[in-house]
Order: sequence, then C-alpha cells, then structure tokens
Amino acid sequence: MTNTAIPRQPHPVSLATDQPLISRDSSLSLVEQIVRALAARIDDRLLRSGARMPSIRQFADQHGVSRFTVIEAYDRLVAGGHLESRRGSGFYVRERAPHLSAAAPDADAVNSQLDVVWLARNMFRQLPPQKMPGSGLLPADWLDAELVGNGLRAVSRQNPTLLLQYGSPQGFLPLRQQLQLKLAELEIQTTPEQIVTTSGVTQALDLVARQFLRPGDTVFVDDPAWFLMFGSFAALGARVIGIPRTADGPDVAKLAELAALHRPKLFVINSVLHNPTSGSLSSAKAFQILKIAEQYDFHIAEDDIYCDLHPGSAIQPATRIAALDQLHRVIYLGGFSKTLAANLRVGFIAASPALAQTLADRKILSSLTSTEIGERVIYKVLSEGHYRKHAERLRGKLDRARERTLRQLERIGLDVAGSPAAGMFVWVDTGRDTNRLTERAMAEGWLLAPGSLFSPHQLASPRMRLNIAAMADPGIWRFLEEALAQS
Amino acid sequence: MTNTAIPRQPHPVSLATDQPLISRDSSLSLVEQIVRALAARIDDRLLRSGARMPSIRQFADQHGVSRFTVIEAYDRLVAGGHLESRRGSGFYVRERAPHLSAAAPDADAVNSQLDVVWLARNMFRQLPPQKMPGSGLLPADWLDAELVGNGLRAVSRQNPTLLLQYGSPQGFLPLRQQLQLKLAELEIQTTPEQIVTTSGVTQALDLVARQFLRPGDTVFVDDPAWFLMFGSFAALGARVIGIPRTADGPDVAKLAELAALHRPKLFVINSVLHNPTSGSLSSAKAFQILKIAEQYDFHIAEDDIYCDLHPGSAIQPATRIAALDQLHRVIYLGGFSKTLAANLRVGFIAASPALAQTLADRKILSSLTSTEIGERVIYKVLSEGHYRKHAERLRGKLDRARERTLRQLERIGLDVAGSPAAGMFVWVDTGRDTNRLTERAMAEGWLLAPGSLFSPHQLASPRMRLNIAAMADPGIWRFLEEALAQS
Repeated sequence: MTNTAIPRQPHPVSLATDQPLISRDSSLSLVEQIVRALAARIDDRLLRSGARMPSIRQFADQHGVSRFTVIEAYDRLVAGGHLESRRGSGFYVRERAPHLSAAAPDADAVNSQLDVVWLARNMFRQLPPQKMPGSGLLPADWLDAELVGNGLRAVSRQNPTLLLQYGSPQGFLPLRQQLQLKLAELEIQTTPEQIVTTSGVTQALDLVARQFLRPGDTVFVDDPAWFLMFGSFAALGARVIGIPRTADGPDVAKLAELAALHRPKLFVINSVLHNPTSGSLSSAKAFQILKIAEQYDFHIAEDDIYCDLHPGSAIQPATRIAALDQLHRVIYLGGFSKTLAANLRVGFIAASPALAQTLADRKILSSLTSTEIGERVIYKVLSEGHYRKHAERLRGKLDRARERTLRQLERIGLDVAGSPAAGMFVWVDTGRDTNRLTERAMAEGWLLAPGSLFSPHQLASPRMRLNIAAMADPGIWRFLEEALAQS
Repeated sequence: MTNTAIPRQPHPVSLATDQPLISRDSSLSLVEQIVRALAARIDDRLLRSGARMPSIRQFADQHGVSRFTVIEAYDRLVAGGHLESRRGSGFYVRERAPHLSAAAPDADAVNSQLDVVWLARNMFRQLPPQKMPGSGLLPADWLDAELVGNGLRAVSRQNPTLLLQYGSPQGFLPLRQQLQLKLAELEIQTTPEQIVTTSGVTQALDLVARQFLRPGDTVFVDDPAWFLMFGSFAALGARVIGIPRTADGPDVAKLAELAALHRPKLFVINSVLHNPTSGSLSSAKAFQILKIAEQYDFHIAEDDIYCDLHPGSAIQPATRIAALDQLHRVIYLGGFSKTLAANLRVGFIAASPALAQTLADRKILSSLTSTEIGERVIYKVLSEGHYRKHAERLRGKLDRARERTLRQLERIGLDVAGSPAAGMFVWVDTGRDTNRLTERAMAEGWLLAPGSLFSPHQLASPRMRLNIAAMADPGIWRFLEEALAQS
C-alpha cells in the first residue's frame, strides 16, 4: 500500500481562477451549488485545511451572487464541518477529521483498505462529468433522465400504502420475473425464487463474500479488477490473490496453478466487458475456468454489471460461465447502475435455489429489505420495453466515442490493451507511473483512475483506465499531452 | 436453539374454510392478491408440501373469480417455485428448498441463526395487519400514506438527473442537517458530518457490529431484545450475552459483573421504549451504564428507533445515554420505519466525527451509497413540519389502544410487565410456553411474537410481545381466551 502515492494535500487552487462555481441553468439553488462545489474542493484537498476563505463580500462580488446567498452557503459549510468561523476573522477551511480514528478498535484491520476507500470516495465527488475520465459511470447527459424520471413519477402515483410496510426481503416479485426473462436471453435458466435483489452489485458482492469467506480464506480476483471489492474482502480478513487477465480472459494455466496452491473459496470475475480492460471471455476459457472450479471445488461469482453495454457475440465473444454451469457453482450478479441510474441502487444475485434463500436470509440480517421504489422504477422501465432501445443507443454512442478516443490516443502515442470493440473503458499504457500522473491531474481538477487502483495489491502501474464517454473535453487531451511530454 | 418448538409443518388449513383470499377493494390485482395469499400460506407451512391444490375450475368457483385469473396466479406460483404442475393431475404445493443448503460452506456458522431468520421472515408476510399482533410495525392504516405519498410525488418531480449518479456515501446532506436539529432537541450535539444515513436501523447495527466485533468477541444486549440482531451478531462469530432488563433499564449490578467477566466490545441497548417491554431508562441507570462502559472500556450502541413514540419525560423518563456522553463512547442509531414508512429504509447513525467517517467508509464497501429517494422523501416530511403533528397523533392513538388492550388483558387474566405508559408494545405473561401458543395461533392464521424470539438464546418463555395497534379484532381475543382456557 506504500507505493500508492496519491497526494493527501495537493497544490491549493485559488477560487478566483477556477472554473465557474455556479450556473444559472442548474436545477440546484445557488446556495446548493456553492455548497457542493466548495465541499467537493475541500474534500478533494484542492482547498487546504486552514486556508482562509474569501470574505462574504468578496465572494459575492466575484461570483455575482447576493451576500445572503454566500452567508447561507458558508453557514451550511460550517454545519457540514467543511469550514469553521473564527470570530472577527472570517471563514477557514476546517481541519478535517482523520479518515480512520486512531482510537477505532480495529484501525489495523481497516488500514489496508484505506487508500482504496479514499480513492473510491473521490469517485463520488460532484466534479463536472467531463472532468472525470476516471469515473466508472457514464456521464448523466449520456443516460436517459426522462426514462428514469417517468418511471419514478409513475411509481409515485401508485398507492403509497405499499411503502409503509417492509417489502419482500427477496425483492419486488415482478422485477424478479423480468430478470428471469433477461437471464433466459443469456441462456441462464432461473426461477424468480433464485433471484435476490440487492442495493447495487456492491451489496451483492458483499453478501456473497460474507457467505463464502472466513478470515484467512483465499479469494481470487481478476488482475486488474474493480477496486472496491479489495477493501471489502480485506475487511473480512480474506486473502486476495489476482489472476492475470489476458485478452480473452484469465490466464487459465496460472489459475490452475494458484488454485492447487491456495485452494480458494471463491473466484470473482467479470466475464463480459471486464473492468478495466473491456475484454470478454472466450467460450474455451469459460469452459476451462469452470473445469478448474470443479476440480478445486470453489465457487465463481460472475459480475456481469456491464452486460447491456455488450453488442452481442457477433462483435465480440460473450460467454457467461453461468450459462455453462446453470447456477450450480456460479453465482451471477447484475445491476442497472451503468445503464439506467446508479442512485436507484438496484442490483441482483441469481444463484441455486438454496443459496438464493441463504443469501436472502443474509440480506435480512444486514438490511432487512431493500427499498421497493428503485425496484419498481426499474421494473417499469424493463417491462415497458424502452430499455432495449436505450441500451442500443448507448452502445452506438460508445462506439463513436471509442473510435474518437482511440484515434486521439494513437495521436499522442499511447497504447491500448487489447482491441476494445465494446464497453465504456479503455486500459491505456502510459509508459510511466500513473499514480504521479493522477496526482498532477487532480491538482488541475481532473479525476483519473490510475492502474494501482485496479491492482489487488495497489501496485504502481503504467496503466490507467479511461472512461471513453468522458474524453470529449479538449482540455483532458491537452493535459495528457503536456504531462506526458514533461515526465 | 433446540427448545424453540416453532412448527415446521403445522396443521394444514383448507383453502375453502379460510378467511377470504381476495378483496375487491384492494389496490392489488386479483391475480396479485391470490399469488400473495397462497405464497404466504405456503411459506408459512399452512399449506403442506405435496398438498394438492383445488383445480382451476374449483378455485374459480369458490372464490368467484375467472378461470383466467386462477391460471395466471397458478402460473406465477409455479414460476415462483411455490407450486408445481403435474401433467394431467393438477397443481401441487412444491417441495420447498431447504432454508440453508447443506452444501453451503458455512452452514454450521449460520445454523445458529436459522430459527431467528425463519421467524423473522414471517414478519414480512402479507397477512392482513389485524392478523399480526406479533408484528413490529404499526398497521398501514395507522400511518399517513398521504404524507409519505406527497413526499414521494414531490421528489419524483425533482430533476431526475440526480438519480443517475451515485449520491453522497454519507447520505443526503439536507436530511443530515434536519437530523442534527432533531438530535439537538434530545440534547445530543452533532454536526451533519457526524451523521451517516443507512438502510434502516438494521444496516446501522450491522455496520456498527462489523466495526466493533471480531470472531470470539463478546457483545452485550438487553434480555429480552430485538431478535434480528442476534442472528447478525452470530454470523460475525460474536458471543451474545443478555443483560436482564428491569422496569427502568438493565440490571446494572449484573452489567458490572458480566462486564468484568467477559470484557465486551459493545453493548446494544434500547434506552427509550425498549422493545419488547416499552420501558425506558432512568437517568440514574443511564449514568451508571456509562460509568461501567468507561470502566471496562466498551462502546454503547443506543438504538432509539422508538424515539418519536415517546411522549416526553413528563409521562415517563426518557434519558438517552448519548445525551450524557455526547457521542464519545455512545453511537446513536435512529430511523423512520416505525413512524413514517418501513419500505423507505431510512435509518441513521450519529457518532464521533472520526467514527462516523469510518462507518461511512464501511458503508461504501458494503453498498456504495444508499438511495437518495427515501432520504429526500423523509427530508421533505421533516422539513415541512408535518412530522411533529403526525407523531403526536400516533401517540394519541396508541394511548387509546393501550388502554383498551390493558383492560382486555386484565379481563382474560393476563399480566403485563411494567406499567407501560407509552410505546406500541406490551410484554405479556401468559403463564405457559408461548412457542406452543404461537404454533396454534399460526395454524389459525394469527402471527404472534413468542418470548423465545426476544431471548438472546431463544429460550422458551411464558411471555410474548403484543402490538397494541393490532389488537382491535375481537377474533384475537377469542383465540387467546380459548387457547389459554385449554392449555
């Protein structure tokens, strides 16, 4: 973890020279916009602890807002712990609480997740989307706010009595029936009884990990892989081992060798549109992985969150191990954060009937039920038949953005792993330490996703993940060109 | 766990003599009503595995619905795994998957939670509310569906773009600001930074338990106490020890003695309107508990979910330990499932700044963010000032229901613990094993909450918890009288 050189206190940015904090077109109030913009800068350490804020009058003049607006915004930032008011002297960026209290009883156990969490937190910043080539989500203007908004309005007109009681712990039944149809198209046969809804794929993975992993157990992941789960597994006391990912899936010789050596309980894998490389599994690899899992008796958690960004096997292979195994040894995970709306927090698990029941029990123990609102919204969207077209549109836009991005990358001399023909990410080789690059980028207001984030051991890496939907701003290309020329 | 004699296969109930399955007044479709009613009976074992269902024609005639409706309902029950169709012979109740697969890797570890979870699941059944004196929620018609519905409709008219991205991992800021005000009224000083929203108090407790408990650690709970947490703590490998609850709080001599002996990491307590006795902590006890916690250096998780059902200290003492300690050693938990809407799943944690940050990190690892919709709805309700009046109305209704219930209990010769003057529960002494009583009740379609549920070791008990808001149906009183006369 020591080689993750992400800065704790990058160069301060003066408010005056920064991009505009507020927009008259925003649906947010001016106060809310100022609060969010300043809180984000403070959280990102773009404003140093102890730095003095412009006076209320200065700020009002600089940004063309009323003093009353500034007072209210500053007050809320004080209440939120971002600023402090020193009587007679003005407002200052407050000393932030440390991320983990030294007094916390298990600081040691959690320490190993610290950087991952700190970096993950940056993913939630309210930076403008074009400033976030490191983001794992599509920008809001790529998605269909109307589709989601109409769904929510329809749900809000339903009988609100439904909200007063707990919903079904296993999830809204009509949604699970829709998911059964969706999975059937992927050649995975289930019943709604085998499906459990979750608060995004994150809770799905957490429930599966808590089911299979005890302290000291080994879990295999792709290397590289989605970073948040490393922290989650570490918190369970599990040993995380990466299986090198090649163009058409994991290195199966290595997988067999490491399985014999470490006897893992679980292998978590993106079969289709792997994050971050956007590669997908060949049928042959899927078969070999399942054989190895049978031989060494481990389970496979197949995270298919990018499912609907895949254009179909005519373009790129797309084999789900679950289609071979039919949910005996494979647990299939999916969700709608990438294509519909991350904040609805709707994910799901499909598993054998008995395991699904056990996971539903675990869900009861950890959160009783999930809220049905999001599940009803997703159900509306799926059942009314607009989703397929929406996904198709997204894929078309991604194809065009990918082509532009690959052309630009070639122009500035950067290599891309594989020949990505689908998905929202490219995995770029910069030829230098991307932690350092990320640090510089952050100081200039860009969020990057350095390779270390995706390494099971946070090893520094010359690679980084670019979100092709967030590469339209010429500024990011200028930044990359300059940064690469200098180092 | 062996003495929890809850039946796995109680007396089968013929569909024909049962209460009506369907109502023309329901907002649910006929198909949906039939599916829910039958699924609930099958899940509750009121319909035996292998039992033959009425034919489609019989069912349609008996219940005055079209055959098409019955076909669709049966088909959905087949898809849902509740029924199976045997060609040429009709529909049968399907052999249910065992709750925990023998093949599940940690069946042993989870086995100890089995009964709790099985019983908990019954709490989610869609029985008519007047059939559920064992429920932990107020009946839907006691709550204000319009208040919640208006809130949701207002949120659904907001800019849907807000839903497309992840929200703030710590929770919707304006709600946290409202909660700060709410806590200030309870003399607990916080900042919004110290508050983390959760998916109900259940997730709050799960996050706190995962923070403080490692396998082998000891956690203290009230005895009796809310049952779901026993399963959650057992799943973490923690040892659960009950501290006997007296009228004005825990037996503090016992607490000191057991603390010296077991050195717990955490004590989870309902200070106000304890579930199931509805007793509240005296100031003296609160002080003593905090002193003992300091002496033996454990944390206190103060679960105040019944907060707003308490009428104020004029009627009954209501001391929060957090008000004495100001969130140094105490973690305060609250939520809105009891007074507004369980399905919105909005709870929260207030803790020291550093611990709040750590718990927010844990929340990221286990579910990224919580959905903002429910948080925005609760914020609307709180900030528009209708909540206080709503809570007042609820307390008034509860007072009247409590008086009626206590009178009836006296009439049939049952004792109540303490002299409950507030809250939604009474803790009744029946003088006989309430597991057996629960079993009989379930066979007749009543859900009770036997004392064993609330015992940290699921010991059989002559007590049971009654929800006074669910005691209006004369049938439950007839059932109790008859059952008590016979045994």
